Amino acid sequence: WQDYKVAYHAPMLDVHLKSTGNTISPGKAKGRKPRWAVRASEMSKKTFNPIRAIVDSMKVEPNPKKAMISLSLGDPTAFGNLPTNDEVTRAVKEVLDSGQYNGYAPSVGYQSCREAVAAYYNCPEAPLKAQDVILTSGCSQAIELALAVLANPGQNILVPRPGFSLYKTLALSMGIEVKLYNLLPEKAWEIDLEHLESLVDEKTACLIVNNPSNPCGSVFSKSHLQEILAVASRQCVPILADEIYGDMVFADCKYEPIATLSTNVPILSCGGLAKRWLVPGWRMGWILIHDRRDIFGNEIRDGLLRLSQRILGPCTIVQGALERILHRTPPEFYHNTLSILKSNADLCYAALSAIPGLQPVRPAGAMYLMVEIEMEHFPEFENDVEFTERLISEQSVFCLPATCFEYPNFFRVVITMPEEMILEACSRIQEFCEMHYQGAEGAQDLECDK
Amino acid sequence: WQDYKVAYHAPMLDVHLKSTGNTISPGKAKGRKPRWAVRASEMSKKTFNPIRAIVDSMKVEPNPKKAMISLSLGDPTAFGNLPTNDEVTRAVKEVLDSGQYNGYAPSVGYQSCREAVAAYYNCPEAPLKAQDVILTSGCSQAIELALAVLANPGQNILVPRPGFSLYKTLALSMGIEVKLYNLLPEKAWEIDLEHLESLVDEKTACLIVNNPSNPCGSVFSKSHLQEILAVASRQCVPILADEIYGDMVFADCKYEPIATLSTNVPILSCGGLAKRWLVPGWRMGWILIHDRRDIFGNEIRDGLLRLSQRILGPCTIVQGALERILHRTPPEFYHNTLSILKSNADLCYAALSAIPGLQPVRPAGAMYLMVEIEMEHFPEFENDVEFTERLISEQSVFCLPATCFEYPNFFRVVITMPEEMILEACSRIQEFCEMHYQGAEGAQDLECDK
Ligand SMILES: Cc1ncc(COP(=O)(O)O)c(C=O)c1O
Ligand SMILES: Cc1ncc(COP(=O)(O)O)c(C=O)c1O
Repeated sequence: WQDYKVAYHAPMLDVHLKSTGNTISPGKAKGRKPRWAVRASEMSKKTFNPIRAIVDSMKVEPNPKKAMISLSLGDPTAFGNLPTNDEVTRAVKEVLDSGQYNGYAPSVGYQSCREAVAAYYNCPEAPLKAQDVILTSGCSQAIELALAVLANPGQNILVPRPGFSLYKTLALSMGIEVKLYNLLPEKAWEIDLEHLESLVDEKTACLIVNNPSNPCGSVFSKSHLQEILAVASRQCVPILADEIYGDMVFADCKYEPIATLSTNVPILSCGGLAKRWLVPGWRMGWILIHDRRDIFGNEIRDGLLRLSQRILGPCTIVQGALERILHRTPPEFYHNTLSILKSNADLCYAALSAIPGLQPVRPAGAMYLMVEIEMEHFPEFENDVEFTERLISEQSVFCLPATCFEYPNFFRVVITMPEEMILEACSRIQEFCEMHYQGAEGAQDLECDK
Repeated sequence: WQDYKVAYHAPMLDVHLKSTGNTISPGKAKGRKPRWAVRASEMSKKTFNPIRAIVDSMKVEPNPKKAMISLSLGDPTAFGNLPTNDEVTRAVKEVLDSGQYNGYAPSVGYQSCREAVAAYYNCPEAPLKAQDVILTSGCSQAIELALAVLANPGQNILVPRPGFSLYKTLALSMGIEVKLYNLLPEKAWEIDLEHLESLVDEKTACLIVNNPSNPCGSVFSKSHLQEILAVASRQCVPILADEIYGDMVFADCKYEPIATLSTNVPILSCGGLAKRWLVPGWRMGWILIHDRRDIFGNEIRDGLLRLSQRILGPCTIVQGALERILHRTPPEFYHNTLSILKSNADLCYAALSAIPGLQPVRPAGAMYLMVEIEMEHFPEFENDVEFTERLISEQSVFCLPATCFEYPNFFRVVITMPEEMILEACSRIQEFCEMHYQGAEGAQDLECDK
């Protein structure tokens, strides 16, 4: 989501530099002389995309002698090496040929498609029926609806740090406060549970759990998920599970949908086709309502239904294809994607581990890898933003500074590119770090200072 | 939009009748004993679809001896007699085959698609460039973004009565007040300009002009649009033009985009593929920004851009096909749709005009027709809701009571069905009215009462 603009050098709306023209008009109404004074709403001003703000402020040109390599884009289709499966495309073409899916669907999605998604994710530990599924315009809208139904302005939500920036963007635009709980890089990005629990107060509307994680590429173990659920259960805080990378974990690791591990915590699980089926542009997402104790009850279900009527659901030709997409995509397709991601992750991790001053954290799923910058070895740079800025201007390699995820002194690498590109990028990063690294003496000086 | 649920007997989210279970949990936090008490947000409660409320309250069964005919659905594809054009479908299939449109697009749409829409609607009187176009998930999201950027909670917007219910649904959910201005059936549903102007106050954020109109099927003349613009200009109120039925006018009448008639009033024109291209489910809409005096300026453009990043734009495979859809759809397709609509309108108008107690208003475009019920001739029925309710239970014909559009004592008929169905429906309506009509004597009694 958040960074497509960077790679596409995407068009911004043209900016008029003149300030708003307050032309005076005749004005006939009772006494007052109307003038033009059109202001953008408070909400639009509170809708703030931190990545855009940070990236826009990075005023650098890539090195003209080196072709640009952008490792910043959370779009697995960006490099052309990870096409979706033919069955996925074929399913939509069949729907188009049928001519049966051009009309309005119910705002929560066709009943048959909700059934298909329910059947696909249904399991004894977390049963799902059609009425537990709401189809949305991408996982982004799923998150938006979930937040909009659970939280009022003035309430707060608990959000991972580092974490996907959309949570904060949406929350602040709705006047909801964001409390950041820490993930621990040294524990493979597990949640600092004590810190998490300490943040809960009577205004806490929900806990966002993103597993597998963007930007970390981490995957929570069953026991860790159970610990998280225990906090939610003790504190009576519902969970918004962002599981858009669900099932995208490497072979040596298992993905557990959080709802399968709880019998009492009410959970809205958000997902979609974007990542696993490699079609993020199709904007097909969903909310799965897990509420076995009837804590959400009719209240939340009805609220979601009403909110869905504001703009209506996802494109019907993708909806119409959904059942076939879920059933016909061959298992090899998923395996193939994951084995490429796993091999890229290994390659990238190995290459970056060998670079002085960098500490990559090994990912277990999703399509990202976080790298710590040992800033004391790079005294030239103030922070991760400056570091990544200079990496662009010298090496034409663009990684997102993790300040975008509220986590300074790291950067995020995407691992969806072709192998050669990873190798080239890593070797340029190496060259860059070797150039700027202040080695042992520097570090020893530092020790001596103590 | 608003009534698909009726025709599809669309699945509602299942309703749990039990009240929210406040199970008491151990509760470990500082002194307080947390309990589950999850409530839906205020916003979700303020999101109210009047049509659903009215239609849901109509607890009637159709007459089992007569097949149901639903004339309530604003979905031109509902009857299967108005398929989209093959070129439209083919364009999307080509896009699917290319594999080039599966990734994220910029949140305001692909640059090339924005250019295509700009070129299509560009004209000397109202020039448009790519940066003046924002692609949205249907016209509904276009309206949502336009309202969200123009109005703050506590401000008001001016909305036609009768009018499309989404305006009020969206506004109330955002805490924006709605002021209804009157349309005049006796003047072919022109705006009561004096009434309109009298409603403007310093909190008025915008004026919604819906032309051609749902539910009226009316089309404003050039001179009437100029009068409306004169009010907006005098009062310095920007216009949100809902032109989703743009160009859908019968041969004897001309459609003028309101922006082509003004050089100073800033206008956000909302449109999309839904109606003219007969693919409402595809959720492809747009905002055209007309701001030749730079009154919106960067302020509003930037606000729209920021708001678009909340859920991202429309499905990329439809976006990718947009240029081809606009250019390759043969003119005969549009003419054919309109000649069917025109002939249906004539048929329907003639048939309903002959029925005692009904006064249809002749439409000039869109796909609706409003019918006045001379309630004094139907003393059995309290209002339009009761009238249409009984029409279902006796004749299995479903028309929307115009109370759904804030206009009691009318009902709305959709004119997209096949001819035979119109004739059958009108003859059943006739039978119904003849059965319940209280004729001259009743009317004379009424006269005598004066
Ligand atoms: C963690 C996370 N959640 C949600 C999304 C949004 O998904 P979608 O494109 O389906 O809106 C993304 C996209 O990058 C993501 O990384
Ligand atoms: C007047 C009017 N505006 C907007 C819409 C919504 O259009 P879309 O389906 O593209 O969201 C409709 C749909 O019926 C309508 O009648």
